[in-house]
Amino acid sequence: MNKFMDRDFLLSTETAKRLFHDYCEDLPICDYHCHLSPQEIYENKAPSDIAQLWLGGDHYKWRAMRSCGVPEVYCTGDKPGREKFQKFAYALQYAIGNPLYHWAHIELQRYFGIDTPLSAKTADEIYDRANKAISEGDFRPQSLITRSGVKIVCTTDDPIDDLRYHKLLKEEQGFDCRVLPSFRPDKALNINLAGFADYISKLGAVSGIEIKTADDVIEALIKKADYFHSVGCRISDQAFDYVPFELMSDDEINRAFATAMQGGSVSQQQADAYKTKLMLALGKKYSELSWAMEIHIGAMRNNNTAMFNAKGADIGFDSVGDCNIAQPLSRFLDALNADGKLPKTILFNLNNKDNIVLATMLGNFQSSEAESKIQFGPAWWFLDTMDGMTDQMKFLGNLGILGKFVGMETDSRSFTSYGRHEYFRRIMCAFIGKWVEDGWYAPDEEMLKEIVQGISYYNAINYFNFE
Amino acid sequence: MNKFMDRDFLLSTETAKRLFHDYCEDLPICDYHCHLSPQEIYENKAPSDIAQLWLGGDHYKWRAMRSCGVPEVYCTGDKPGREKFQKFAYALQYAIGNPLYHWAHIELQRYFGIDTPLSAKTADEIYDRANKAISEGDFRPQSLITRSGVKIVCTTDDPIDDLRYHKLLKEEQGFDCRVLPSFRPDKALNINLAGFADYISKLGAVSGIEIKTADDVIEALIKKADYFHSVGCRISDQAFDYVPFELMSDDEINRAFATAMQGGSVSQQQADAYKTKLMLALGKKYSELSWAMEIHIGAMRNNNTAMFNAKGADIGFDSVGDCNIAQPLSRFLDALNADGKLPKTILFNLNNKDNIVLATMLGNFQSSEAESKIQFGPAWWFLDTMDGMTDQMKFLGNLGILGKFVGMETDSRSFTSYGRHEYFRRIMCAFIGKWVEDGWYAPDEEMLKEIVQGISYYNAINYFNFE
Amino acid sequence: MNKFMDRDFLLSTETAKRLFHDYCEDLPICDYHCHLSPQEIYENKAPSDIAQLWLGGDHYKWRAMRSCGVPEVYCTGDKPGREKFQKFAYALQYAIGNPLYHWAHIELQRYFGIDTPLSAKTADEIYDRANKAISEGDFRPQSLITRSGVKIVCTTDDPIDDLRYHKLLKEEQGFDCRVLPSFRPDKALNINLAGFADYISKLGAVSGIEIKTADDVIEALIKKADYFHSVGCRISDQAFDYVPFELMSDDEINRAFATAMQGGSVSQQQADAYKTKLMLALGKKYSELSWAMEIHIGAMRNNNTAMFNAKGADIGFDSVGDCNIAQPLSRFLDALNADGKLPKTILFNLNNKDNIVLATMLGNFQSSEAESKIQFGPAWWFLDTMDGMTDQMKFLGNLGILGKFVGMETDSRSFTSYGRHEYFRRIMCAFIGKWVEDGWYAPDEEMLKEIVQGISYYNAINYFNFE
Repeated sequence: MNKFMDRDFLLSTETAKRLFHDYCEDLPICDYHCHLSPQEIYENKAPSDIAQLWLGGDHYKWRAMRSCGVPEVYCTGDKPGREKFQKFAYALQYAIGNPLYHWAHIELQRYFGIDTPLSAKTADEIYDRANKAISEGDFRPQSLITRSGVKIVCTTDDPIDDLRYHKLLKEEQGFDCRVLPSFRPDKALNINLAGFADYISKLGAVSGIEIKTADDVIEALIKKADYFHSVGCRISDQAFDYVPFELMSDDEINRAFATAMQGGSVSQQQADAYKTKLMLALGKKYSELSWAMEIHIGAMRNNNTAMFNAKGADIGFDSVGDCNIAQPLSRFLDALNADGKLPKTILFNLNNKDNIVLATMLGNFQSSEAESKIQFGPAWWFLDTMDGMTDQMKFLGNLGILGKFVGMETDSRSFTSYGRHEYFRRIMCAFIGKWVEDGWYAPDEEMLKEIVQGISYYNAINYFNFE
Repeated sequence: MNKFMDRDFLLSTETAKRLFHDYCEDLPICDYHCHLSPQEIYENKAPSDIAQLWLGGDHYKWRAMRSCGVPEVYCTGDKPGREKFQKFAYALQYAIGNPLYHWAHIELQRYFGIDTPLSAKTADEIYDRANKAISEGDFRPQSLITRSGVKIVCTTDDPIDDLRYHKLLKEEQGFDCRVLPSFRPDKALNINLAGFADYISKLGAVSGIEIKTADDVIEALIKKADYFHSVGCRISDQAFDYVPFELMSDDEINRAFATAMQGGSVSQQQADAYKTKLMLALGKKYSELSWAMEIHIGAMRNNNTAMFNAKGADIGFDSVGDCNIAQPLSRFLDALNADGKLPKTILFNLNNKDNIVLATMLGNFQSSEAESKIQFGPAWWFLDTMDGMTDQMKFLGNLGILGKFVGMETDSRSFTSYGRHEYFRRIMCAFIGKWVEDGWYAPDEEMLKEIVQGISYYNAINYFNFE
Repeated sequence: MNKFMDRDFLLSTETAKRLFHDYCEDLPICDYHCHLSPQEIYENKAPSDIAQLWLGGDHYKWRAMRSCGVPEVYCTGDKPGREKFQKFAYALQYAIGNPLYHWAHIELQRYFGIDTPLSAKTADEIYDRANKAISEGDFRPQSLITRSGVKIVCTTDDPIDDLRYHKLLKEEQGFDCRVLPSFRPDKALNINLAGFADYISKLGAVSGIEIKTADDVIEALIKKADYFHSVGCRISDQAFDYVPFELMSDDEINRAFATAMQGGSVSQQQADAYKTKLMLALGKKYSELSWAMEIHIGAMRNNNTAMFNAKGADIGFDSVGDCNIAQPLSRFLDALNADGKLPKTILFNLNNKDNIVLATMLGNFQSSEAESKIQFGPAWWFLDTMDGMTDQMKFLGNLGILGKFVGMETDSRSFTSYGRHEYFRRIMCAFIGKWVEDGWYAPDEEMLKEIVQGISYYNAINYFNFE
């Protein structure tokens, strides 16, 4: 029986242990997609206690608590930190199989030096020890980031953002991590969501372009993309519930746009045509800027109207959709490719049924512009689990080239979430180590080192041209 | 090499053995969903032989036989018991990987004391030994149920049922098991199936309500729900091929209803609107009664028209559908939740592609009304296999709170199917035991005991408020 | 740690080793579906070198190379063989997890006697050694086929084919393998693809039937089916992106047909109705001829328009679709079955989400005409991987009768691909061996031998009535 989450946690073979400890453990981190706040990184304030650090904004933890019948007031409400922490500890002890269980203990071990398993019984003791560590140590964002070995952080930013904090951070002394913006134009795409017209007005204002048509939106976004590029942006990101692909005349699209700008509603077909037009133009721009285009497919957001109305978005009421994506995704990528304007692309799925669709879609559009120019993104959000990560690597291995995978990012809002890179690397080394031990891959140490270090760090650096 | 299906069958680690033998093996059974006949339980007749007991009505076995080319006359026909049993034994020996293989041997071992593997070679010997056991022992339904440790059985009943046998069983002396009805209003929902108008007439008659509109149907069903509640019902069940969610005006719905009552056909959209209206009203009623609402999603029934015409339903010609369910299911649950009337809900999928949809849907609607108020139902029917059960626990573990899972039910029509609870508990203990042995969950014996006993029995008892 | 791909490669238990080495290793091969060219088999020309043999037409290898950024000119272009081979070796070393990695090494070991792992470092040495083997040995198609123990090859042929080479091969002396045609009417079905009218004209010409209506197409195809039967054909094959099932009047269908014959475009509904009419007629004919009907579902072809325009089809720009198939497939099979004219059928899926749909669809239509008359085809193309094959056997085992499975075919265009049968047999023996070692299936040596030999060879021979 293995010891609980010790040095060799998850490293199920001798080869896995060697690959992780000798080659991957000490490599730096390139976190090429996350939701950290550049303002918080810049302001660099210490958390008041572990309840604020852990439970102040983490919808994963809130979902676990709600699933154990914990009242909302302990999640998004204003109960005292100790009580919130007790409730979380109560829930966590039932969360066998949930990555939260491992994330929490990795964080306790690495950031707080606490090896005691967290449960209702140990909640008070750990709460006190963790808070002592916080008060005596340095738990400010910049310290957590640099202690974790993070060299590059790509945040997620709206095109209308002025990127003020990215610029300030560039000049920050003694903070050895590049914090780069990513371009996420979702609000300009979501013509059928509330707030669209207001958003477009703001986009017009910050870009200095009078927006009357879809082409004007494109012009404004392109102008902002150039600005983002000048501040170091090399990645765009878009979130699609499903994959829109619909071709219509500009006249029809502009009529729908005018309707939406006046607060009217447009059909799904019209919305899709508008989104398609924008995405084809944006994809072309990304290609010209040599950016990577990330596409996150398959979330179904804000399912609980009562909670959305009470508390807003991104608080743990999202789940996994099940749209059919193969055909529209193929047509979208093909349309860009046919013009020679398909950018480097990373495809992320939230529904594991799409693993095979994405893992085979890649092969349709690879080219000599980059090694694995079209990437199958790492297991994300609800798939960011041992099983999800292992499956993603299985499908990529079976159907593409695992050795060229750009690897993990956290997609997180938390400054202590960098343990997820360690978690991923352990799982990846276990996966590859087993192949070697089983006699399924040649015992070629040089290649194995290159592969596991590539997936851990260097493939991403090369892919995004970060160094 | 392990011995064939011995005491430690499936218990692949020492921890698994301890968890099962020390904590789960002897716990009683709460079979909160099955298709046993209350009349047969009440009448309590002994089977004539093992052919009648095993092959008289078990579509799982018939399907296996047909897949080996066995003529129909040995399945639903009138061939002698010995010959049917021989044909079944012939098929079973090729059924490596099929849960039938394990179910059959668990039943032979537990109910008949027979350890010999069943095959064509041993069919005659086992047929004789089993029949000797039947003639010498007590194989009547009540005995099989109580010998299996079953404390609660929830049958599946039509709203027009008078529940006569449930009431008689309540007064039955010396039968230490509560047999409770469940409310299954499928026939009142299926406006586009043959027999709808007749059924509604009967519903009107038994409820004493003159049914002219959809609202009258609802009134009749609510009246019957109150009656079911008075006889001990605490669970409703509905079977959806897909998930209907369509909003229409009452006028439109009532026009469609009138059409259907006159034998006309209604569009799928109209049918969905009718079903949605009924389900929203029923869900509200279930919530008011504190019932749990079970939803079984994804069967595709009666695919073989020739056999359906010759022999009817439920004889083994059903399979798994592949509709997209995420959006309508979310909207349905949200509509009830927005009114504060979402009952406790258990979501069952028949297509494994829906595992992730359901396992994440839960989290959208949890609340402090119950621990894991929205449950991911155990692997069911075609997923009621080692792989299906393990996957269900993986997804629930990854994405929800496994420790609050209400666990297994048989969904069976057979009085010897209680071995499936043992089968489930062994698989569950193996699953959890491996996590502990691998060092992935803290070696906290108290918590482990609570979790495995909870999933085996107590979580269901608490969830349904059965004690 | 196991040695790299040695004698016991993949055979993870002692039982697996025994089952493979004692019972399966030396059995002949029945390759009941492939894309070998009968002309090339007949002409029997030796390859010039391993680059031509391996890289002359293998889209699997080209995809792997493109995924590592290898320029197209090394794939489908005219770079020297050595350079192409070097590029392939470079890509292969990153292809951990990809069946290509195993296929390549099995071929090097079995056909070339080379045990050295292939990588960029060893590419030159292996290129020279392999070419020496080719120049000194017999690598002509007939020799490769007979050295591999192949007794039956079923090629894939267009109804307008004159089957000249099949007839010539029948008379070939000293070539102990039956090369039989299969009937693949895709071009007559694809009413909405370019080239349809031309194709129908050719079909009319070779069948001697003046084609004016869909019924004429059917008459011509039936005539050609009879001809194929006379040359030894026992199998038909059809490829469906999705499963068409749409009923329309003959008048409507013939109007659509006339439109298509004049180069006009037809709606998807019309195309589906035309296809449905043809498939119902063809299925009936297959049934009358006692043929097996293969249906390959779920490819999405020619996704890269630029490459399709430059280089044509079947060069590695296909991927996996995600249509919903359960309902139309059920209705199609049921329509044939209701008339008593459902032929033996083998259902293949390319999307693993369809595993459960197919594995349960089988059971709807089994009959005593054959043992497992409706088969779940082996994992195919993008699923032809360790994981894909294991999953297919899991689903078939869980939901059908694994012991009656007709087993592997290569679906390949390559004369050295027969190692895939060995690969499959090893995986199958590992799968079944583990069940026995775990105590999950009775240690009945006689049955185990029958099952593994059946799946390896005899079940296919019996199913297709080949001997």
